[in-house]
Amino acid sequence: MEIFPKNKIVVGMVGLPGRGKTYIAKKIARYINWIGFKSEVFNTCQYRRDLYSEKSFTADFFHPHNTEAADIHQDCSNRATNDLISFLSEGGDVAIFDGINESVEKRRNFKKTLDENLSSYSLLWVESICNDENMINDSMQTLSSSCPDYKDFDSNSAIEDFKIRIENCRIQYQELSKQDDGNETPFIKLYDFGHQVLLNNVSGYLESKIMSLLMHIHNKQRPIYFSRHGESLYNVDNKVGGNPDLSQRGYKYAANLNIFLQDEMKERRINKKSKFFSSTLKRTIVTAGAVDIGIQAVPLKRLDEISTGLYDGLTYAEIEERYPNEAEERKKDKLRYRYPEGESYMDIIQRVEPIIFAIEKSKEPVIIVAHQAIIRCLYAYFCKFDIEDVPHLSVNLHTVIKLVPENYQVHEYKYNLERSQNHTPVYEKRLI
Amino acid sequence: MEIFPKNKIVVGMVGLPGRGKTYIAKKIARYINWIGFKSEVFNTCQYRRDLYSEKSFTADFFHPHNTEAADIHQDCSNRATNDLISFLSEGGDVAIFDGINESVEKRRNFKKTLDENLSSYSLLWVESICNDENMINDSMQTLSSSCPDYKDFDSNSAIEDFKIRIENCRIQYQELSKQDDGNETPFIKLYDFGHQVLLNNVSGYLESKIMSLLMHIHNKQRPIYFSRHGESLYNVDNKVGGNPDLSQRGYKYAANLNIFLQDEMKERRINKKSKFFSSTLKRTIVTAGAVDIGIQAVPLKRLDEISTGLYDGLTYAEIEERYPNEAEERKKDKLRYRYPEGESYMDIIQRVEPIIFAIEKSKEPVIIVAHQAIIRCLYAYFCKFDIEDVPHLSVNLHTVIKLVPENYQVHEYKYNLERSQNHTPVYEKRLI
Repeated sequence: MEIFPKNKIVVGMVGLPGRGKTYIAKKIARYINWIGFKSEVFNTCQYRRDLYSEKSFTADFFHPHNTEAADIHQDCSNRATNDLISFLSEGGDVAIFDGINESVEKRRNFKKTLDENLSSYSLLWVESICNDENMINDSMQTLSSSCPDYKDFDSNSAIEDFKIRIENCRIQYQELSKQDDGNETPFIKLYDFGHQVLLNNVSGYLESKIMSLLMHIHNKQRPIYFSRHGESLYNVDNKVGGNPDLSQRGYKYAANLNIFLQDEMKERRINKKSKFFSSTLKRTIVTAGAVDIGIQAVPLKRLDEISTGLYDGLTYAEIEERYPNEAEERKKDKLRYRYPEGESYMDIIQRVEPIIFAIEKSKEPVIIVAHQAIIRCLYAYFCKFDIEDVPHLSVNLHTVIKLVPENYQVHEYKYNLERSQNHTPVYEKRLI
Repeated sequence: MEIFPKNKIVVGMVGLPGRGKTYIAKKIARYINWIGFKSEVFNTCQYRRDLYSEKSFTADFFHPHNTEAADIHQDCSNRATNDLISFLSEGGDVAIFDGINESVEKRRNFKKTLDENLSSYSLLWVESICNDENMINDSMQTLSSSCPDYKDFDSNSAIEDFKIRIENCRIQYQELSKQDDGNETPFIKLYDFGHQVLLNNVSGYLESKIMSLLMHIHNKQRPIYFSRHGESLYNVDNKVGGNPDLSQRGYKYAANLNIFLQDEMKERRINKKSKFFSSTLKRTIVTAGAVDIGIQAVPLKRLDEISTGLYDGLTYAEIEERYPNEAEERKKDKLRYRYPEGESYMDIIQRVEPIIFAIEKSKEPVIIVAHQAIIRCLYAYFCKFDIEDVPHLSVNLHTVIKLVPENYQVHEYKYNLERSQNHTPVYEKRLI
């Protein structure tokens, strides 16, 4: 549901290369989409790579004296701006303009173009500043291996060139300041990936949601594990809801999950500082309880399965038989369908939002043993599935989903602990 | 629903006198209660006034060399801390410690006491810093007339004494800094009532909610008007939901509301910059449409009446007759009761949260023409009604509620535009 009519938001990124602008931009877009609004990133570098693929983008390309490059930068910036304006005019809510946007003049010109083309919008600048040498080095290390501009470079030459690129961009770089565009310009400055944050005149509902997200992100890598409980007696009977125990097969899975996680501990992919959560329902407590890795799962009510309300304890067949209209309604819009006196998937997204922030915040591995609908919502956030697809995502019993979010991508692994005892993933994918 | 087990939050206020600490503390508590958590303010000055009422609290009482006063300050601080610990131990979620807390030493001692008495909690310091002379003068003006310490003073002597009090407190004043308690200490610094905000290592769900609120508050006074639509044809028939037109009596009210608001405009209580909102339903659009004050109401879907789902268009008698169990359920817990395929009051509170932020943010008067359940939720926020009472608040047809939030209180006026044509309030109250 829209907040205020035609209240579009443009987020403009500002920052030297290697400050995580694209990482932050993508996180914002993913989160805004997940809470039910439309958001997209318009990355000027991507336009450059797509439109001028024949060029070589070494450090010299970023020197202010390179006039040919300046024209190309301007062209890409214009095209990104045009697409961004179209996106907002055609129903988008939050458009993110991802580029270096290093000078007051460039930022003013961008704003002028928006003013001329959008009848109502708010502009929020987000600057990423990094003074922590270790963080900058980590970031350069990652970029040297993943940035398409350096695909033909070895790691050391890439890093050397990248350092010069940063210095070339610094020549004309002006930090955001109250003086840029008057006292009232809304902006956010993130220092060292959100460890310190300065807000200037920032308000608005979606802006406050963006701020909430920015308070929780960092650039440390760690795996996130999702597992449903082992098969329950209700799964066997095809019933919904309830608080059943595990079936024998379910207990077997709990034992296998234990071995799997013990192996992950041996391989040092998880550790004793890992965050480990279950729901408060018996089937996840028993499943997580079988896991003996030196840390205990904390049961959280927010991880309890979607409430099926009046249908609690019925089989799907019984629901269809007794309430044919309701079953029909549910098929029509499974995302927003709310069980009578129960919940919808949209309700779950709101309910688990604090869990998303807790996972984002954790610099240590996270293990979650929960339920199908709950994991669908969490999984969709990290893998950027379309919100309409959330209720249909495949989250099978007895399968561990492991996600490793990296700078620009998420590595996804699925382990079927029934079929494969040697813990080779049955599925592996990189999501950009 | 709790966020994480036993995750209590202590908010510690820091700031010189006259920086709006108490104002901010009360706003945080009110908001946290409104979204369904338990919050209370523990104001050390209030303990001083209650326990040492025989003393005179002139500026000298705040000089660091006044050892007798120092003992009293310490005693009050200890008592407030004890009560705060009891509150959190007995189910409270967010306790706000409101005092000057001027030195690193005092803040460390406070934290030490918490560490010794609470098994799990997060401490968040919130400092209010004001460099804008106009804001400080406004604040002193208000305090000189409303602060109980100055009840026997004329305004000028109160302001003079208050200025010395500020300077006396400044002697030992140390701003919050990363160095106080290590890099990781979470704190928020508000400059000039939130115009600029600096966050240091702040994360967590309720913390981000508090942050969202702080992004929207200011210390400008302006009235807020709430009116239901004029009587609708469904009101006449005692039906719920629907999208009916007004009755004749309803149209009469719309005309009266116009005269009332025109008079408010003449008296300069509202102006052409005022924010004016209705819902998207016919009965509020027609009511607001009759108001001719040079600004048009913007229709917002978030202000639409509570959805009664399957019961849409039924009378209350029909609901009781056809669904006796449901009617019974609704009576048991009207706050959380959700109409089948419809909404609950708790749903409405979430839905109108962006409206609350928009009202808080506005430095101009706000006029809202909406519906009973919607206004109950908004009204409860500003007047700090208990969340359980929200569905039972009296929000009558043909009655304008006008609220004027001030520093430490809310002036509330109700105008019955059917009975009294001369616009004298039928009801007036100060809420502390």
